[in-house]
Amino acid sequence: MTPRLVNLRDLQFVLYELLEVEALNSRARYADHSRETFDAAIDTALKIATEQFASHNREADEHEPQFDGRCVRTIPEVKPALDAFRRAGFMSATKDYGVGGMQLPVTVAQACLALFNAANVSTAAYPFLTIANANLIEAFGSEDQKRRYLAPLLDGRFMGTMALTEPQAGSSLSDIKTTAAPTQDGRYLLSGNKIFISAGDHELAENIVHLVLARIRGAPPGVKGISLFIVPKHLVNDDATLGPRNDVATAGLIHKMGYRGTTSTMLNFGEQGRCIGELVGEPHHGLAYMFNMMNEARIGVGLGAVMLGYSGYLHALAYARERQQGRSPAGKDPLKPQVRIVDHADVRRMLLAQKAYVEGGLALCLYAARLVDDLYTAEGERTRREAALLLDILTPIVKSWPSQYCLEANSLAIQVHGGYGYTREYPVEQLYRDNRLNPIHEGTHGIQALDLLGRKVGMRDGAALQLLMREIDRTVRQVRGCDSPELRRYAEELATAVHGLMETTRNLLCAGEKGETDFALANATLYLEMMGHIVVAWMWLRQAATAVASLPRAQGADGDFYQGKLQACTYFFRWELPKTRHQNELLNSMDRTCYEMQAAWF
Amino acid sequence: MTPRLVNLRDLQFVLYELLEVEALNSRARYADHSRETFDAAIDTALKIATEQFASHNREADEHEPQFDGRCVRTIPEVKPALDAFRRAGFMSATKDYGVGGMQLPVTVAQACLALFNAANVSTAAYPFLTIANANLIEAFGSEDQKRRYLAPLLDGRFMGTMALTEPQAGSSLSDIKTTAAPTQDGRYLLSGNKIFISAGDHELAENIVHLVLARIRGAPPGVKGISLFIVPKHLVNDDATLGPRNDVATAGLIHKMGYRGTTSTMLNFGEQGRCIGELVGEPHHGLAYMFNMMNEARIGVGLGAVMLGYSGYLHALAYARERQQGRSPAGKDPLKPQVRIVDHADVRRMLLAQKAYVEGGLALCLYAARLVDDLYTAEGERTRREAALLLDILTPIVKSWPSQYCLEANSLAIQVHGGYGYTREYPVEQLYRDNRLNPIHEGTHGIQALDLLGRKVGMRDGAALQLLMREIDRTVRQVRGCDSPELRRYAEELATAVHGLMETTRNLLCAGEKGETDFALANATLYLEMMGHIVVAWMWLRQAATAVASLPRAQGADGDFYQGKLQACTYFFRWELPKTRHQNELLNSMDRTCYEMQAAWF
Repeated sequence: MTPRLVNLRDLQFVLYELLEVEALNSRARYADHSRETFDAAIDTALKIATEQFASHNREADEHEPQFDGRCVRTIPEVKPALDAFRRAGFMSATKDYGVGGMQLPVTVAQACLALFNAANVSTAAYPFLTIANANLIEAFGSEDQKRRYLAPLLDGRFMGTMALTEPQAGSSLSDIKTTAAPTQDGRYLLSGNKIFISAGDHELAENIVHLVLARIRGAPPGVKGISLFIVPKHLVNDDATLGPRNDVATAGLIHKMGYRGTTSTMLNFGEQGRCIGELVGEPHHGLAYMFNMMNEARIGVGLGAVMLGYSGYLHALAYARERQQGRSPAGKDPLKPQVRIVDHADVRRMLLAQKAYVEGGLALCLYAARLVDDLYTAEGERTRREAALLLDILTPIVKSWPSQYCLEANSLAIQVHGGYGYTREYPVEQLYRDNRLNPIHEGTHGIQALDLLGRKVGMRDGAALQLLMREIDRTVRQVRGCDSPELRRYAEELATAVHGLMETTRNLLCAGEKGETDFALANATLYLEMMGHIVVAWMWLRQAATAVASLPRAQGADGDFYQGKLQACTYFFRWELPKTRHQNELLNSMDRTCYEMQAAWF
Repeated sequence: MTPRLVNLRDLQFVLYELLEVEALNSRARYADHSRETFDAAIDTALKIATEQFASHNREADEHEPQFDGRCVRTIPEVKPALDAFRRAGFMSATKDYGVGGMQLPVTVAQACLALFNAANVSTAAYPFLTIANANLIEAFGSEDQKRRYLAPLLDGRFMGTMALTEPQAGSSLSDIKTTAAPTQDGRYLLSGNKIFISAGDHELAENIVHLVLARIRGAPPGVKGISLFIVPKHLVNDDATLGPRNDVATAGLIHKMGYRGTTSTMLNFGEQGRCIGELVGEPHHGLAYMFNMMNEARIGVGLGAVMLGYSGYLHALAYARERQQGRSPAGKDPLKPQVRIVDHADVRRMLLAQKAYVEGGLALCLYAARLVDDLYTAEGERTRREAALLLDILTPIVKSWPSQYCLEANSLAIQVHGGYGYTREYPVEQLYRDNRLNPIHEGTHGIQALDLLGRKVGMRDGAALQLLMREIDRTVRQVRGCDSPELRRYAEELATAVHGLMETTRNLLCAGEKGETDFALANATLYLEMMGHIVVAWMWLRQAATAVASLPRAQGADGDFYQGKLQACTYFFRWELPKTRHQNELLNSMDRTCYEMQAAWF
């Protein structure tokens, strides 16, 4: 099966035409870069993703990791893939030249990493978790911790995990029970059980570095008493050589619907009372450290969801352009040859919806990555502050919208394939199973909704929301001046939707302030979904404005490409954005249906 | 894992309170029946479904049938389950006492069979296909064919399949290429390849009777040249004993995402030039015969989709009532105990949506079964004619609406379970995988849409649609006289939606008559989905009207049950039905977005 990871023309459009990533080269940090070096990095990623990751994607699904009570074994193709990934420099894509990094902008690095998710999401999870783990240690670890853990994590000797979830505390991190007791040498003895720990055990590296959330004895209750610990599978000596096995035991593997190549483990810390951990940073600040990483992880989840949807879309498109089946309703003569299924309007509807979801999602996620670049390297302090605010409010949407709609894209890709799509002989069913995880992990859909409506929109007197609305308004005003009456109409529709969103937000926040917090947040998920659609409509209007400006000069396939952008924008504004009208009415009516439902009535 | 198949109180509500199935006992055919005999049949089905089907549902998923090049083996639990099903009489549930049947109304028989789908959809497929096969032979076969095939199919010696699909002709049956050449003894030699043949090979019976669509040499092209043949795996002698192996070869098994216990086969007919088939009925009438069965099969698909969704809903509900996690936004004190997740409004939203989808779907499918009873046994000819018309127009909706929304219910059931729901240690992920087939087989979603808008709404000058609208209007007028202002408001909203549907239908039919057939049908799927929501809203209004009438006399759990019906109706009218407003606008605007999209623009 030909791997289909992304439409490179679209990726270039988003990076260079929509987000103007080349402009980053004016920043000192990226002075050595150019479009050529960015394209070279993307080409390298595409090549390795295709040859080393996509090549065993189905195999990893069919032969999930096995635990024999002692070791966890993955299929043999995983390790060479990780080696190739690392040798090409992607573990340190954004890091300084001085430490062996490529010093790439986050936007370009994310575009590269996205290709690995499209190729094989379950193998890609191993290095991605290790990168996140290394970033946390780099940001908050001591010099000694960096010396002993960071380099081995980046050079492949060690790999990393994030150990948050416990059986009794899934989304509710304040109920974490794992404890840490100080020892005389400044370290801690950990005791507790963690569950759903991805990459929690395997033989792919010499050592596994768990970053564990736990409570130091006597800590304050709730989230304010959670600390972060480095807990290695094998202890690490002062000279960075491996010491004895630590008291971390794999209690078993969890068997998932998809993402099967990534081990998901139940880990017991301190069953024998000798699980040693090292505190990272200050006591009781663990959750804040973790959330620092979590925000980028959530963008990563959104982008991963996009890429699974994107790959499915490309498979469905290729199938629809080849497969002959049926005839148009007006030309049913059975003596005439059958037509390609892309010639059926309903198949085009399914492809157009997929295109709108996955290309809209890609623009959204890379826009968020571009904000991370601004946060880190923009010259003006105001630009950096605004990027932080926009990221605050957009993160729950970037995580959840693609998890919902690019999963829907995967379902449509199956449908385009008909019966074949439902079989494991075609790739789309695995993509659908893999993508079903994304609305769950790194904070469920409902948790993102509470984060958005319960925290983000109200914070700093609504500064983040107001800034986002100003940004959208900027696009609206720009499009009002363009030549296309169609786009001008969409701009007005977007402005109307934004107006409704703001009014509804005020009413919900007002109800919250009147002490009706629970009631004001009861329909938070609907609010998240409405705002997601409005933000993606904005992304489509921006893409269409860019396309319409380039269309007069475009030739051949480029003209088709821009026409496709305009048609997908039309699809989004005619078929998708209007759905928010009813959502807005429901929210504004302070609907009590779910709030008042009683457990006994089900 | 406790099997959870249905809420029996709800099943009784739909049968006895909503559809008044006891009234059927006034018909001579059902004079010996009573609520007691109906309940006894349901109890028996529930017991066998639980003990013999649900018990190996996971096992059948994990160990799919294996083909060693000669035989196809299923897990050993399947055969005893089928024996128990047959011994209890469910192969002949609706048939005459004289032939060993139970002479049950179709509505009650479907309620019984539904429980097997809820318990284990892939094992249930074997007897269900055999029943459909037997029904076709009974209706259209010769006396000799009935003598040799019918009894063995019903007594378990033989099992049956439906062999329609070919690799080059999925949805497009007019392109079937399998040929049948007459022989001197009045039989035919068949030659061709079929694909996706469920239960196409196994060792569960002495013989497998394939009902094969093929073209007699020289037949007219297209659907008017298709004939129906009995093609047994082993030839059947005149005395009904088995003769030699027929030339039907299993080329391989297809491996599916779900429904894994049901073998899906590629069959080669006549590789050695000696595949013998017997014509059923007249030449070239094969498709008409097949569609006679197909309409009931499509109700069966809808009901199967409902039951997979229903089981997932019950699992999610049980989990939500037990699982403690988190606290309300207004009461986050970590020293307080966690609450049950059903106490979170967002979890109630997900459960309420599931309830609205699966209970709405159950009412819809059993209403359709009730129409089949009227079609067969109503005393007045007009009632029978009207039942036929209503079934004509409702069948595509009954097939497709549950396939879409009860699959969505399965996704929500996973979401309620959080990370656990994504694991194979919990049952909801399998239900989701199993249910994903239903929008595809027995005519895809898009095919149902063309059937509805391209044939059913316009046929006989719109008689079926007008009758359906009169039936809905009857409910609207009835509810206008009820005590509940809420229900009276919903009745007006339903009337408005119906009005919009009728206007849009006229406009679409008018465009079709102007020669713009392809354009008029371009958005047929949207029309199908809109009409589906309107019909299910009607089902909810009827359920609510029944509940509100019974509520004053209800005590204890019964009161909760009726309150739940009212709240689910409220959910449907506030959260779901308004979605049709935008759908109606789009359809009425004759939107050209998908129609005008070009293949090159993707």
